[in-house]
Amino acid sequence: MKPLLLTMGDAAGIGPEIIVKAFEAGQLDDAVVLGDVAVMRRAAALLGGRVTVQTIDGPVRSAAPGVLPVLQPASLPSDVAGVPFGRIDARAGAAAAACITEAVRLVRSGGGRAIVTAPIHKEALSAAGVPFPGHTEMLQALSVDTGEPPPVRMMLANDELRTVLVTIHVSLRRAIDAVSFDAVLETVRIADRSLRAMGIARPRVAVAGLNPHAGEGGLFGDEEVRIIAPAIAAARADGIDASGPYAPDTVFMRARNAPGHPGEFDVVVAMVHDHGLIPVKYLGVEQGVNVTLGLPFVRTSPDHGTAFDLAGSGRADAASLVAAVKMARVLTPG
Amino acid sequence: MKPLLLTMGDAAGIGPEIIVKAFEAGQLDDAVVLGDVAVMRRAAALLGGRVTVQTIDGPVRSAAPGVLPVLQPASLPSDVAGVPFGRIDARAGAAAAACITEAVRLVRSGGGRAIVTAPIHKEALSAAGVPFPGHTEMLQALSVDTGEPPPVRMMLANDELRTVLVTIHVSLRRAIDAVSFDAVLETVRIADRSLRAMGIARPRVAVAGLNPHAGEGGLFGDEEVRIIAPAIAAARADGIDASGPYAPDTVFMRARNAPGHPGEFDVVVAMVHDHGLIPVKYLGVEQGVNVTLGLPFVRTSPDHGTAFDLAGSGRADAASLVAAVKMARVLTPG
Repeated sequence: MKPLLLTMGDAAGIGPEIIVKAFEAGQLDDAVVLGDVAVMRRAAALLGGRVTVQTIDGPVRSAAPGVLPVLQPASLPSDVAGVPFGRIDARAGAAAAACITEAVRLVRSGGGRAIVTAPIHKEALSAAGVPFPGHTEMLQALSVDTGEPPPVRMMLANDELRTVLVTIHVSLRRAIDAVSFDAVLETVRIADRSLRAMGIARPRVAVAGLNPHAGEGGLFGDEEVRIIAPAIAAARADGIDASGPYAPDTVFMRARNAPGHPGEFDVVVAMVHDHGLIPVKYLGVEQGVNVTLGLPFVRTSPDHGTAFDLAGSGRADAASLVAAVKMARVLTPG
Repeated sequence: MKPLLLTMGDAAGIGPEIIVKAFEAGQLDDAVVLGDVAVMRRAAALLGGRVTVQTIDGPVRSAAPGVLPVLQPASLPSDVAGVPFGRIDARAGAAAAACITEAVRLVRSGGGRAIVTAPIHKEALSAAGVPFPGHTEMLQALSVDTGEPPPVRMMLANDELRTVLVTIHVSLRRAIDAVSFDAVLETVRIADRSLRAMGIARPRVAVAGLNPHAGEGGLFGDEEVRIIAPAIAAARADGIDASGPYAPDTVFMRARNAPGHPGEFDVVVAMVHDHGLIPVKYLGVEQGVNVTLGLPFVRTSPDHGTAFDLAGSGRADAASLVAAVKMARVLTPG
């Protein structure tokens, strides 16, 4: 089987060290790291030096126990390993982007099974002049050579809740402007299709409202009446088991699937970033996974950030990265 | 001790029946219901008729076991008990408002210890021509005879999380417009003062951002830089232990205080309704309590709504109402 392609993320953040931790825990035997070899060696050293970093020329899995294969893209800037921990640095942003670009090139050309990305820092990307606010938008643009990129959506999932977001990395004010009939309907369609691909025969798709109490019948905003309800009706006309709009403050609780608390829905479509992410993260981010739906390849990532306050300490938890790797395997059977 | 004043809420909702349930469970021995006697008798009947409803003329507690004292305001519309369950009805809206008005009159004149309100339906209030979108605004207006009403804020609390909201029952778009320096600073002050009154010597007040990732340094909206951070600085200059702005998607998880997971903060100030309410409700609404901070009297309520789908079935859970009653007792010691 082809390897998983694991990008190292921002060199000033916890990405390199959680990769080394996950590898040392035996969780990355089918993965190749796209990264800066010196950065990965710095991470291996700070964690005790038990992992050896090996430079490879192509996406080939580890040949020996304890040897982590790292493929270094040619376009990396120099001295990325000189980036201090916990600081925004244009070199780290440029290196992170180069690794993502190479991972997409490889997965699209058949050199990898799926992409798992370690955290990047959006300000570092911006400092490097990378014209994307985050992974999702960058992967979307890189997934085609010409023409319109496919519509994609971010899904956040843990053991008990899945949410797919209509809008992500824009200000809340601009997010409201972006909640359109087309955007909501496309999100419902992508959520339905993706959950079917994950083995759920007829996904129950709950659609959250935008406003408090889902607008309380139009008293607190009319997006539910004007936009969201018609999009749900259109999805239902397509045969999708979509329902709502539900009050944002209770729909996640209703969808929560936990021992003794069977969820009413398989996924919640949320209009804005934090409506969806607050409940997924509430019980602890360790097991959360981010999946980009709609790309022509599978991409997952941990649902935490670069954790600049922890970077370099060796104390960062690799659990969410491991969960992302496992999710990538589930989504690429065979 | 003076009685707790318990308003019956919307007659088409679960308010009357959860009051009867809580009374039957021995949780309301120090309370008087402000309500329609026939509505309360209907609720007692549907729950098996074990509770007797007694009409009283003034706020005097139950004289006998199993006898629920109900004080019926003179201004109630007629035939409120003819309101069908689960429907918006102007009579129910008018009756709910009359009970709230009478409860405030009583508590302000020394006839009660605190107010606990059962759920109302905002569309029914609106149908009755009541010029307030919800309890909070109505209580605020009724709390003064002349002059400016005091600034108040909604706090939602359960065993593991407290949040105080800068904005509540307005559309998300208008909520963003309402996030001002003064509104944020006032909320932080009210939160700090109220938690001190609840016995926390130096409350740790976390302030959430408005935008995804708290604006990520201004990339996704500038309210954090322009408004929220300066308000936090002003609160700190007043001696308040306020900090932030924090990313909305992780601050609630960080504040969560559960066995094995000590919270980093005593309260989270949230900019918009659903940022705060989603995490408080995520683990189940049964134990959630709504407290109105800043009024000249104590007011608590369950954090659920009228549950029109359950009303009349006798299946509604009284746990959140009981939690609200207990919180009202805690807040009015002596």
